[in-house]
Amino acid sequence: MALHTTQMRREIDEIPHAVERLLTDGAAAITAASVEARSLNPRFLLSVARGSSDHACTYLKYASELLLGLPLASLGPSVKSVYGVDVAAAGALGISVSQSGKSPDIVRMTESIAASGAYTVAITNETASPLAKAASATLPIHAGPELSVAATKTFVTSLVAGLWLLAELKSDNALIAAIRGLPRHLANAVACDWSEVVGDIHGDSLFTLGRGPSWAMSNEAALKFKETCQLHAESYSSAEVLHGPVSIVGDAFPVIAFAAGDAAEDAVASVADEIAEKGAKVFATTDRVARATVLPHVRTDHWITDPIAAIASFYGLVEAVAASRGINPDAPRHLNKVTETV
Amino acid sequence: MALHTTQMRREIDEIPHAVERLLTDGAAAITAASVEARSLNPRFLLSVARGSSDHACTYLKYASELLLGLPLASLGPSVKSVYGVDVAAAGALGISVSQSGKSPDIVRMTESIAASGAYTVAITNETASPLAKAASATLPIHAGPELSVAATKTFVTSLVAGLWLLAELKSDNALIAAIRGLPRHLANAVACDWSEVVGDIHGDSLFTLGRGPSWAMSNEAALKFKETCQLHAESYSSAEVLHGPVSIVGDAFPVIAFAAGDAAEDAVASVADEIAEKGAKVFATTDRVARATVLPHVRTDHWITDPIAAIASFYGLVEAVAASRGINPDAPRHLNKVTETV
Repeated sequence: MALHTTQMRREIDEIPHAVERLLTDGAAAITAASVEARSLNPRFLLSVARGSSDHACTYLKYASELLLGLPLASLGPSVKSVYGVDVAAAGALGISVSQSGKSPDIVRMTESIAASGAYTVAITNETASPLAKAASATLPIHAGPELSVAATKTFVTSLVAGLWLLAELKSDNALIAAIRGLPRHLANAVACDWSEVVGDIHGDSLFTLGRGPSWAMSNEAALKFKETCQLHAESYSSAEVLHGPVSIVGDAFPVIAFAAGDAAEDAVASVADEIAEKGAKVFATTDRVARATVLPHVRTDHWITDPIAAIASFYGLVEAVAASRGINPDAPRHLNKVTETV
Repeated sequence: MALHTTQMRREIDEIPHAVERLLTDGAAAITAASVEARSLNPRFLLSVARGSSDHACTYLKYASELLLGLPLASLGPSVKSVYGVDVAAAGALGISVSQSGKSPDIVRMTESIAASGAYTVAITNETASPLAKAASATLPIHAGPELSVAATKTFVTSLVAGLWLLAELKSDNALIAAIRGLPRHLANAVACDWSEVVGDIHGDSLFTLGRGPSWAMSNEAALKFKETCQLHAESYSSAEVLHGPVSIVGDAFPVIAFAAGDAAEDAVASVADEIAEKGAKVFATTDRVARATVLPHVRTDHWITDPIAAIASFYGLVEAVAASRGINPDAPRHLNKVTETV
């Protein structure tokens, strides 16, 4: 399968343009929601999502906690849809993420926290979806149609929309400028060539690692390997991996470590080297490793946006690994594009 | 290796006695902390933990959300220890869990949220530990010395201590009675024989599943398989597994589904059967499956305590799988009993 022929690869290449479109067409909605959210003066945040969208919320959790100092609780949609409980949400800012906006459990949980007093924002690609109707405000991600089963450009635009909302809420002009600079960095990021990794993914298991906001990218990368390559990739915090999971790491076990140019970079690099020392084949998006292999990576204008570039670089790898295993990444086994869960 | 010879097996068998001791010797501390916590009238909860202790917090998150309707945000310790951020914690009840009470990042995050106004409770086996000193109140778990690297009885007693605090906070007498009835159910639970599963764990990968409070047990089970058996077990919400991870499930892929006698039981059973239909070898702790194999399981006096019995039954399996693979579960590869993370 030649490069650039799959729908997934075409959508990866669209990432910089989709973000550019979001920055232009999405500005009014973001500004309006941030004004509302600021007047609420939220004490904590709640997130509602599943799958890749939930990994976007993990990134937004770190952004909220690290930039605004506001804790974010990720709510399992089953709390409402299965157990029938409405949690106390007065004074909370709720963020619901779903590209389709269709899954009934996400919609019901969003309705529940809105009824309990949260100001709720829907980050979605479908402005006419039930989720958009359920939320107090909708932030369209302007990704355009996504045809590949594996989400790529909708994931990245969801990250950017959510981060932008938080940046406006904080009136953080340096961060807003960094967000506006993303399309250029993302164009470089999707061009990063990670194909040297392909030959080292020989078995059926691998680990992805990260810490802080980059851990969310590690989660997303592991899910993509599973759904697109039928590989048992598992994501770990680079701090947690030494608490037990490292036990399964043997000779040439593949590990991909996501590191941003942030306060955790040295810690991630050090764990990457420690695992490489045990015989694993470790790759990392940082120059600060000694034994692990440095992957091409882009540093953006703010440490919190570095992980967005890293996942854009990663997607090309997962598409190439799928091709190398004879799998069509556009039509993974057992999966549908829209998963509706109750 | 004969049954009952490992330290791990001995400590599994001590679980009912450890819980009995907690119920007797721990009552005064629980009552005092619950009075303090009630006077705070918390609007949300925060948890601080890593590894198995973090899985205990996931269970407590569901208990808090389902029983008290209060959202719980799990804080990554790195927010303080690496990024240097103090999150807004006024009006929050903080729960920190660590059997050793020693990891510097857990201690620092606990100090941070206490300084930001949270009422903090340390659930620990070491009453003289730095964590006990850092928290507003200490709930000793009374587990006695735990010598096996893999935590078993400290995990179960941590669950019981945290749940008991929430039950007292809610003044839920039916739940308190169910907690008091646990030693008898746990004696039956540790006697449940899951050895029929051993022969079906042939490869190096498996999934564990759960939903709601049982998902926390699924997380704990997957970690135990990794650290004790060098198996790549990964935990999924039975709702999430159909969003991508199911793609790696092939013929005879082993899956263990944790289901309690709660509102999610039918949903977990239905996913277990759906995955069995795809050719996987699925086991489940519920009678409501048609294609999956029913595992012996104990139903307690309250749906929220059922998962505590399920993990007690599971531990015997993981010890047996380790033995079948020629691994000494008391001394797993690459691991130390106390992991100190900064």
